[in-house]
Amino acid sequence: MIMIERLIEQALLEDIFTGDITTKALLPQRCPAEARLIAKEDLVVAGVIIAGRVFARLDPDVIFNPRHPDGESVPKGTVLATVSGNAADLLMGERVALNLLQRMCGIATLTLRFVEAVSGTKARIVDTRKTTPGLREIEKYAVRIGGGINHRTGLYDGVLIKENHIIAAGGITEAIRRARAYIPHTLKIEIETETLTQVDEALTAGADIIMLDNMNLDEMRSAVATVNGRALVEASGGVNLDTVRAIAETGVDIISVGALTHSPRAMDISMLLD
Amino acid sequence: MIMIERLIEQALLEDIFTGDITTKALLPQRCPAEARLIAKEDLVVAGVIIAGRVFARLDPDVIFNPRHPDGESVPKGTVLATVSGNAADLLMGERVALNLLQRMCGIATLTLRFVEAVSGTKARIVDTRKTTPGLREIEKYAVRIGGGINHRTGLYDGVLIKENHIIAAGGITEAIRRARAYIPHTLKIEIETETLTQVDEALTAGADIIMLDNMNLDEMRSAVATVNGRALVEASGGVNLDTVRAIAETGVDIISVGALTHSPRAMDISMLLD
Amino acid sequence: MIMIERLIEQALLEDIFTGDITTKALLPQRCPAEARLIAKEDLVVAGVIIAGRVFARLDPDVIFNPRHPDGESVPKGTVLATVSGNAADLLMGERVALNLLQRMCGIATLTLRFVEAVSGTKARIVDTRKTTPGLREIEKYAVRIGGGINHRTGLYDGVLIKENHIIAAGGITEAIRRARAYIPHTLKIEIETETLTQVDEALTAGADIIMLDNMNLDEMRSAVATVNGRALVEASGGVNLDTVRAIAETGVDIISVGALTHSPRAMDISMLLD
Amino acid sequence: MIMIERLIEQALLEDIFTGDITTKALLPQRCPAEARLIAKEDLVVAGVIIAGRVFARLDPDVIFNPRHPDGESVPKGTVLATVSGNAADLLMGERVALNLLQRMCGIATLTLRFVEAVSGTKARIVDTRKTTPGLREIEKYAVRIGGGINHRTGLYDGVLIKENHIIAAGGITEAIRRARAYIPHTLKIEIETETLTQVDEALTAGADIIMLDNMNLDEMRSAVATVNGRALVEASGGVNLDTVRAIAETGVDIISVGALTHSPRAMDISMLLD
Amino acid sequence: MIMIERLIEQALLEDIFTGDITTKALLPQRCPAEARLIAKEDLVVAGVIIAGRVFARLDPDVIFNPRHPDGESVPKGTVLATVSGNAADLLMGERVALNLLQRMCGIATLTLRFVEAVSGTKARIVDTRKTTPGLREIEKYAVRIGGGINHRTGLYDGVLIKENHIIAAGGITEAIRRARAYIPHTLKIEIETETLTQVDEALTAGADIIMLDNMNLDEMRSAVATVNGRALVEASGGVNLDTVRAIAETGVDIISVGALTHSPRAMDISMLLD
Amino acid sequence: MIMIERLIEQALLEDIFTGDITTKALLPQRCPAEARLIAKEDLVVAGVIIAGRVFARLDPDVIFNPRHPDGESVPKGTVLATVSGNAADLLMGERVALNLLQRMCGIATLTLRFVEAVSGTKARIVDTRKTTPGLREIEKYAVRIGGGINHRTGLYDGVLIKENHIIAAGGITEAIRRARAYIPHTLKIEIETETLTQVDEALTAGADIIMLDNMNLDEMRSAVATVNGRALVEASGGVNLDTVRAIAETGVDIISVGALTHSPRAMDISMLLD
Repeated sequence: MIMIERLIEQALLEDIFTGDITTKALLPQRCPAEARLIAKEDLVVAGVIIAGRVFARLDPDVIFNPRHPDGESVPKGTVLATVSGNAADLLMGERVALNLLQRMCGIATLTLRFVEAVSGTKARIVDTRKTTPGLREIEKYAVRIGGGINHRTGLYDGVLIKENHIIAAGGITEAIRRARAYIPHTLKIEIETETLTQVDEALTAGADIIMLDNMNLDEMRSAVATVNGRALVEASGGVNLDTVRAIAETGVDIISVGALTHSPRAMDISMLLD
Repeated sequence: MIMIERLIEQALLEDIFTGDITTKALLPQRCPAEARLIAKEDLVVAGVIIAGRVFARLDPDVIFNPRHPDGESVPKGTVLATVSGNAADLLMGERVALNLLQRMCGIATLTLRFVEAVSGTKARIVDTRKTTPGLREIEKYAVRIGGGINHRTGLYDGVLIKENHIIAAGGITEAIRRARAYIPHTLKIEIETETLTQVDEALTAGADIIMLDNMNLDEMRSAVATVNGRALVEASGGVNLDTVRAIAETGVDIISVGALTHSPRAMDISMLLD
Repeated sequence: MIMIERLIEQALLEDIFTGDITTKALLPQRCPAEARLIAKEDLVVAGVIIAGRVFARLDPDVIFNPRHPDGESVPKGTVLATVSGNAADLLMGERVALNLLQRMCGIATLTLRFVEAVSGTKARIVDTRKTTPGLREIEKYAVRIGGGINHRTGLYDGVLIKENHIIAAGGITEAIRRARAYIPHTLKIEIETETLTQVDEALTAGADIIMLDNMNLDEMRSAVATVNGRALVEASGGVNLDTVRAIAETGVDIISVGALTHSPRAMDISMLLD
Repeated sequence: MIMIERLIEQALLEDIFTGDITTKALLPQRCPAEARLIAKEDLVVAGVIIAGRVFARLDPDVIFNPRHPDGESVPKGTVLATVSGNAADLLMGERVALNLLQRMCGIATLTLRFVEAVSGTKARIVDTRKTTPGLREIEKYAVRIGGGINHRTGLYDGVLIKENHIIAAGGITEAIRRARAYIPHTLKIEIETETLTQVDEALTAGADIIMLDNMNLDEMRSAVATVNGRALVEASGGVNLDTVRAIAETGVDIISVGALTHSPRAMDISMLLD
Repeated sequence: MIMIERLIEQALLEDIFTGDITTKALLPQRCPAEARLIAKEDLVVAGVIIAGRVFARLDPDVIFNPRHPDGESVPKGTVLATVSGNAADLLMGERVALNLLQRMCGIATLTLRFVEAVSGTKARIVDTRKTTPGLREIEKYAVRIGGGINHRTGLYDGVLIKENHIIAAGGITEAIRRARAYIPHTLKIEIETETLTQVDEALTAGADIIMLDNMNLDEMRSAVATVNGRALVEASGGVNLDTVRAIAETGVDIISVGALTHSPRAMDISMLLD
Repeated sequence: MIMIERLIEQALLEDIFTGDITTKALLPQRCPAEARLIAKEDLVVAGVIIAGRVFARLDPDVIFNPRHPDGESVPKGTVLATVSGNAADLLMGERVALNLLQRMCGIATLTLRFVEAVSGTKARIVDTRKTTPGLREIEKYAVRIGGGINHRTGLYDGVLIKENHIIAAGGITEAIRRARAYIPHTLKIEIETETLTQVDEALTAGADIIMLDNMNLDEMRSAVATVNGRALVEASGGVNLDTVRAIAETGVDIISVGALTHSPRAMDISMLLD
C-alpha cells in the first residue's frame, strides 16, 4: 500500500510538477464535473481502485465508483468506473490514472490468454522479476487478477539458485545444503537446471522446486517423469502463446512467463468528461 | 538526474529490500567478477549509462564500460557493455539494470522504425504523455535516442488546449486569448481540433500548433493547405506502422505516437558473468 | 501541489522537530481557539490558502476562512483570514504560516509596483530564476498574483541560449539551429544578445525571443525597431523602480526583474489569538 | 548537514527537474571548464562552502576552491571561489549556487551592519524564527557569520513563554513553574513582558531571560535597572538600523532583529565561465 | 509529530511491504471487526495514542478508544484500548502497534521504578542520548510519562562539554568561555568533570550544570557541598536500581540513567480480536 | 542496504539535526583524530561494519578498520574497531554508532546463549516479528550472527495462519487450501495450532510447518510424534533461558523466541578518542 502510494505520488509529480498550466489558465479553480473511464476494446479489468486513488490524491473529496470488479472480462464500450469531483482535478489526474490502468489491464488480459491456453492441464502460469522498475507490486497484482500466480516478489522473499551460485558453492548439492542452513525455514528452495543429470542431483539434494531452463519438450517430459511429484517442476524460457500449451502438456507444474510484465500491450481506455 | 537516481533507488528497493538471500547464502561477501551485457536480438542501444548507474549504486567501486554509444543500431550478439566489480553486487543489480535497459532499447528501436517509415517527408515523430508512471524522463530520452523528438514533458511545460478547456473558456478564440495572457512567454500554444472549421478559428486566434485529432487523410491534407505554414500541424490518433507513412505524406509537421512508450516490446538482453 | 506540500512539511519539521516544548508545558492538549491573520501595513494579498494548509497539516480539523482573495490590495488592519482549531496547533503553525505569507505578499506587492510603473506601455513584467531555493513554485505564483507573468520555471521548460552556449555551438545561427532540432516543438527559443549585430543574427536565425542584456535605452530602441514585431523583445539587467518606466517606453515586450523574488521586503502580518 | 543536503537537492530538483534542455542541446556531454564566483559589490562572505556543495552534488569530481573564508568583508570585484569541472554541470549548478550564496551573503552583510551599529555597548544582536521556510539552518549560520548570535533554532530547543501561554497557565509565576518542571534542565526559560510589573513578576518567578516586547526606551532602561543582572534582558520589536543604537544604550543584553532573515537584500554575485 | 509519522510509516513498510499475504489469501477485503489491546502484566501506560495512529495510517476510518491515559499504572488484565475497523487492517497493524506500545510501556514502567527509588530526595531522574536509533522522540516521551525528565534531545539543543572538547579548547575555563560566546543565550552550559578540582574550575568558569562522571559517593557529596546551589549537579555512570537511592542521597540534583532507554524490558501486551 | 542507509540517516538526523553545537563551538572544523571502539564486557560482535557506515556518512574520507569479524565472541577490553578521520565527525557519529552497535551485539550475545542452551538437540532458535520498529533488518541480521536463524521477515514473505485467519476461512483445511492457491509457489505454509486435534488436521491438510502455540511439554512431545517428520514443528510461547532446553528436548525442529529482539540488554561499548 505504501509502495503504491509512493508510485502514485511520483507519477503525479513527474506529470504535474509545478502545475497544469493549461487547466490553470482556462478552468475555474472549483467546478464540479463527472467523468467515465471507458474500455475502448475487450479487456480484463485490473487496477480500477488504483486509478481511483490517483484522483483521491489530487482531491480528497472525489467520489469514485468502480462499475466492474478487478478480474472481470468486459467488452469494448464498458464503463469501468465513474468519477465525480472538481473538473480541474479530474483533468489533472486523467493521464496518470489511465497510464496505470491501461498497463494493468494489459497485463491481466495477457495473463488470462496464457491461463486459457493451458486450461485442462495442471500447469499454472507464473510471472517473473522482469517487471517495470517501480511497478512490481501492481504488475504482480495484475498477473494474479488475470489468473496467474506470483513467483517470488524479489530477491528477498525467495531462493532461486542459478548457475553462478552453483559454481560459487561448488556444486548443486552443496549449494542446496548451504541455502537450507541459511534461509528462513518458511521458504522453499528453487534451483535452475539445464540437464537431466542436474535435475537428478537437485532432487537428491532436496530441492523443493526444480526449474527446467530452456529445455525442449522431450527433456521436460523426462524431467517430470524423474521428479515424479517429489518436487515442483517449473518450465522457463522460450514461452509464448504459441508454445505454452505444448509445454503445459509435458506435465510441468509451473510455467514462468517474462512477457506478462515486460511486454504487455497497453489496453485502450479513455476518460470522457460529461 | 535526481529523478533517475530516485527511480533506480526505488527499483533496487523493491527488488532487493532486506537482501538477496540466495546470494548471501552462497557467495562470499567480496569476490571480484566480470560480466557482459549482451544483445540477444538486433536493437537500437539506449540507456547503457543508466544500467551502469544501477551497479554503481550498489558498489561505488564498480567499473562499467559501455561498448556502444546510445543511438547506435547493433546486431544480435553485440556486447553492449562490460562491468566488473564484486560478484554479489553484479548479481544483485542484474535484473534491475536489465529491466531498465530492455525497456529503453525497446522504445528506441520502435521509435526508429517509425522514423524510418516517414523518411523523406518533413514529418517528425514525437511521443506523448502515455508513458509508464515513474519512468517518463528515461522513456522520453529513449524516444530522442531513437530519432524522435519530445512533445511536452508534462502538464507543466506545455499548453495543449483540449475540448474540455475550449468549452470551459467559451470557445477556441477566447481559450487561446486567455492562455496567452497567463502562460510564460517562452511557451507555444497548441490546440486540439476535430474539424476544418476549428482549424480555421484556431489559426485566426493565433495558435502556434494545431493538432488534428483523429482526422482522415483528406481532412489532414485540407488542414495542411489551410494552415500553409502559419502554424505547426500535428497529426494524432490512429497512428501505427501501417498508417504512419500516408499520414506523413499529407504534409503534417508532426506525428505523435502513444505506442512508442505505452506498448514497446522489451528487447532481449542478458547479462553473462564470466 | 506536491512540491508545496513538501515545502510545508519541511518548514514545519525545521521549526517544530520533536515538539513545541513551551506549548506542551503550558497548554492543554486539546482546547479550542480562534485566531485572525492581520495585515499590519498596506499590501497585495498572496498565499492565504497556503498559510491555511500549514494549519491543516498540523490539525486536519482546523477551519480556515480566507477573507480576501489573492490579488486584492488591502489596507493596514485588514483581517486576511480567520482560523479556528486546537490552540496548541494554532500556536505551533503560526510562525511557519506567517513566514510563507509575509514573503508571498511581499513579492506580490513589489510586483504590483513594477506593473503599475509601466502601465500604459505594452511591456509586461516577468520574473527570473533568482528565486529562493525550495520556494520557486510559490514565489512564481506570487509574481502572477501581483500582475506579473512568469518566465520559464526552470532549466527544463524553456530555452535560453546564453553566451557560453553560443560559444560552444560556434555562433548564434548554429546554436539556434541545434536547439530547434533538439527541443520539444512546444517551446520557443530565446537568445541573449549584447549588441545590435547579434540581434540581427538572432532574428535571421529564427529566434522567437531576443533578450537585450544590459543594453542602454538607445540600443533598446534600435533593437525594437530592427525586430519590428518578428520576435518578442525582452529587456534584462539594471531594472529597478527608478528605471523600469523608461525601459518600458523603448517598446520592449517584456522586462525581467530579478529583484521581485530575490530581494522583496517581507510584509508585516501578525496572528492574533482571540 | 543532512538538512542542508536536502535543501540543495530540493533546489536542484526544482530548477533542473528532467534536465537543462538548452545545455543538452548545445554543449558536449563532457567538456572541462573553469569558472569564478565574483562579488559585484562589497559584502561579507557567507556560504561559499555550501555553494561548492551544489556543484559537487551534480559532479562529484568538481574541484571547488574558496578564496576567502566565511566572515571576511571583501570589496566589489573579489573572486570568492573558483570551480573547475564539467562545463554542463557548472552551468546547471550556477543559478542554485548563486541563489544560496547571494542570500547568505546578504544576511551576513546586514547582520554586520547591526553589529557595528551597537559596537561598544554590551548588547548582542540575535536573530528570530522569522526565517525563510526550509532555509533556517543556513540563514542562522549566516547570522553567526555576520557577528550575530542565534536565538533558539525552533520551538523544540528553547522556551519562550508568550502572552497566550501565560493566560493558559493562569499567570506568569505559574507558567514559569510549570515550564521548569517540564523542560530539560539544560534549557533556560525566557518570558515575554509588556509592562514593568510583568518584569518584576517574571524576575521573582525565576525567569532566566526577560524579553521586553515593544517597550520604549525609558521602559527598557527601567527594566534593565530592575533586573540588575539577575536575568538576561532582551529587547524585541521595532528594531532597525535607525533605532538599534539607542536601544543598545539602554543596557539590554540582547536585541533580536527579525529583518536579518526575513528581508535581507540579496548581494550581487555572478559566475564567470573562463 | 512529523518524525513519529515517519517512524510509523517506516515500521509499516518494513513489516508489510508489498502486502500481508496470509491475510490477503484468507480474509475478505472489507469486514468489520473489533479488538482490544490488553496488558498481560502490571505496567505504566505509555504510547497508546501512538499505537492508535498505526491503525489510522492503514485505515483512516478506524475508531480507536484509549481506555487509560498515558502515565497511569494499571494491573495485568487491563484493557488499554479498543479499536474497531476493517479486520484485515487490524491484523496488519497489530504487530507494529504492539512493538511500539510494548517498548514505550517498558520504558515508562522502568522509569517509574527509578523515580520511586529516589522519592523523598530532591534528585530527578533524567534520560540520555542512549536511545534506539529512530525512536528518540517516542522514547524520551515515555521517560517523561514514567516521571523522569529529559536531558537534551540531541547534539543540537544542549551543550555538554566532554573531555575531548576540554582538551581541544585548552582547558575548562576557556571551553566554557568559548561555548558561551557561540551558543544561543537560551541554552545552559553543562560540563563533565572527573575530579573535585575540575568541579571547582567549572564552577568558577560559570558552568550552569556540572556533571560528576563516575564519581563515588564521597566525591559526590563533596562536589555537592562545593557547588552549594550555584550550579545544577548531575550524577552519571554506574546508575542502576541498586545504587540510585544512595546516589540521590548525596544531594545531587539530577541523575542520568542510560538504561531507561537502551535496555528496558518490553512489556507483555497483546491484541485480542473479538 | 537501502533500508540500513535510511536508518542511519534518520538516526543521525534525530541526533544532530542542525548541528552539534558543543563541537562547533570548541573544535576546529578539520583536525585529524583516531578512536577505538572498545567492548566493556564479554560479548558477541555484531554490526561493526554498520557502525563504520555511520562515520562514513558524516565523513566520506574516514578510515574504519574492524578488528574482529561479526560473530566472534570477544572478552571485555577487546578493541572492536579503530576509526580515523576528522575529530568533529568522530564525536558527532559516536553516539549513533554506539547505539546501533550496542543493540546489535546485545541481540547476538543473547541469541548465542539460547543457541548454546539447546546444543546437541536438533532444535534451531529463530526470531519473531517482535523487533524494534525501523530496525528489523539489522536486528534479524544480529540474530543470524548469534547463531539463530530467521523466521519470515514480515507479513510479505511468509504465510502464518493464525486463529483469526482460520475462523475467517471456515476451518484449518479450507484455510490451507486457499493459501496454497493464492501464494507464490516458493513459500511454505505455516499454521498455528493449540491442540493435538488441530495438529492432525493441519498435517492432513498439507501444512508445511506446524506451530505449537503455548503447548506444554507433553503436548509438544505428542505433536512431534504425530507429525513424525512430515512437517516442520515450531514451538512458540513461554520460551526463556530456563525453559528452552526442555522444549528442545521434546524434539521440535524450531523454537521461536521474541525476547531475542524485543528485550535484549544493550552491551556496554565505548569509544575512546586517542
